[in-house]
Amino acid sequence: MKLGRLTVVGVGLIGGSFALALKRAGAVERVVGLGRSRANLDRALALGVIDEIAPDAASACLGADLVLLAVPVAQTAPMLRQLAPHLPSDCVVTDGGSTKQDVVAAAQAELGARLPYFVPAHPIAGAEQSGVEAASAGLYDGRLVVTTPLPQTAASAVRMAEAAWTACGARVVQLTPQRHDEVFAAVSHLPHALAFTLVEMIAARPEAQQLFSFAGAGFRDFTRIASSSPEMWRDICIANRPALLREIEAFRAALEALAQHLRAGDAQALARLFERARDARDSWLQSMGAR
Amino acid sequence: MKLGRLTVVGVGLIGGSFALALKRAGAVERVVGLGRSRANLDRALALGVIDEIAPDAASACLGADLVLLAVPVAQTAPMLRQLAPHLPSDCVVTDGGSTKQDVVAAAQAELGARLPYFVPAHPIAGAEQSGVEAASAGLYDGRLVVTTPLPQTAASAVRMAEAAWTACGARVVQLTPQRHDEVFAAVSHLPHALAFTLVEMIAARPEAQQLFSFAGAGFRDFTRIASSSPEMWRDICIANRPALLREIEAFRAALEALAQHLRAGDAQALARLFERARDARDSWLQSMGAR
Repeated sequence: MKLGRLTVVGVGLIGGSFALALKRAGAVERVVGLGRSRANLDRALALGVIDEIAPDAASACLGADLVLLAVPVAQTAPMLRQLAPHLPSDCVVTDGGSTKQDVVAAAQAELGARLPYFVPAHPIAGAEQSGVEAASAGLYDGRLVVTTPLPQTAASAVRMAEAAWTACGARVVQLTPQRHDEVFAAVSHLPHALAFTLVEMIAARPEAQQLFSFAGAGFRDFTRIASSSPEMWRDICIANRPALLREIEAFRAALEALAQHLRAGDAQALARLFERARDARDSWLQSMGAR
Repeated sequence: MKLGRLTVVGVGLIGGSFALALKRAGAVERVVGLGRSRANLDRALALGVIDEIAPDAASACLGADLVLLAVPVAQTAPMLRQLAPHLPSDCVVTDGGSTKQDVVAAAQAELGARLPYFVPAHPIAGAEQSGVEAASAGLYDGRLVVTTPLPQTAASAVRMAEAAWTACGARVVQLTPQRHDEVFAAVSHLPHALAFTLVEMIAARPEAQQLFSFAGAGFRDFTRIASSSPEMWRDICIANRPALLREIEAFRAALEALAQHLRAGDAQALARLFERARDARDSWLQSMGAR
């Protein structure tokens, strides 16, 4: 796969790493960047992440073979609206958003006849850092990218977008947009909500400073994802509200079950619960290492 | 500080690292190990963590200057009961338990006239590994050790125990047993309960394998503490029940507040919550780095 012209909309961690990975693979000739912040685009140019800054959506689309949309998911609709009139007829569009049903709805509303050339994608390669400074050519190496093509998505567009993600070093897996959002509500959005909630709860207390002074390595790792971008996570939580609310309810019930064991002083039930969790996590870690 | 004879009861991660750290500091002449598993003691001897295996409590106490109790907290009382009749008159006892009110109650019940020589301690240096194989001389370097002396604890005993922990590379801070347990319910026991609960909740679902297959680095770090010893954490949770139950209730309420913002679609409130969490965590990380 060799792209002539790649346009990256939103040159941050996800967009910048996509450009760098395709350059590393020799899979792209020229990368054009479009974004809200001129300072960030200048930095991306200086770092060699992009080769050219587009002054507007029309210039960004000119001659593009592939467009990657890598903006907070709530900006998907307005951004597609700007791009749609200018997309070349054979240009494929993919994205890097962490939710997919809302992105698909935005594409359906904004892309019209161009919808078959949109290939929704979610690279599982977040980091608590953000911005082009954090971008790296190796971010996607060995990582999963979930694509959620629609029945009307063109097979050629799916092939092209998936080939680009594969050239970045990723493994591609397909899900429906709905199943994607259910799965990530459980294994990503809920943990983020829990980590943000714990840190905020402690920070809001009068004795917060004393409490934090005794927090150790376990707390640091447990809360790492609470250093993620508030703007990005606001959008993800709002976009995936129904599934996330179901997971929060399930978690509150599971936590209440643990509290019941505690109130009853049922040491055996607690030990069994902790053992099941440890065994499940250890098996998961092994399967991660094996693949 | 130079100890002639140190007795480590429970030669695992905490006890073994204590012995290795004091040996590294040249602060101990001979280390005696006592434990439930002969195979583990043989391993500790082969690794040079201990110099001698004690066949029973009486031999373990013979000539000891300092005894470290490093067993799951529920074993504190039965173990002190075995040791008490054999402790030399000037021998100091300290421990490594993650809860302190229950450990203090056990010492009050079992040590009688020897109570002033018991210095309750909690090194903040857990790891999800356990066992003597994981022990290292550097485990306590730069870490906090909380001691919770009682009004009747002898000042000379506190000095000796704290000097030993300091020789291990740790910084010592004092709290009351009650405040200790409140603080660690919030910053350690609650996060462990949340991590165990999340993994167990997902593992219990029919589609667990699919869910785990999409879990990424954020999930891995968030749940790292769910690979901790189920036996140890069962004991901690039971020992610190009242404070942990209060924290679980507070967390369920905080999570419900987040759910309310979600139900209301209040993106601004969500963003503010996430920002407060991120800023608090980033400040905490900076203060950790600074000290």
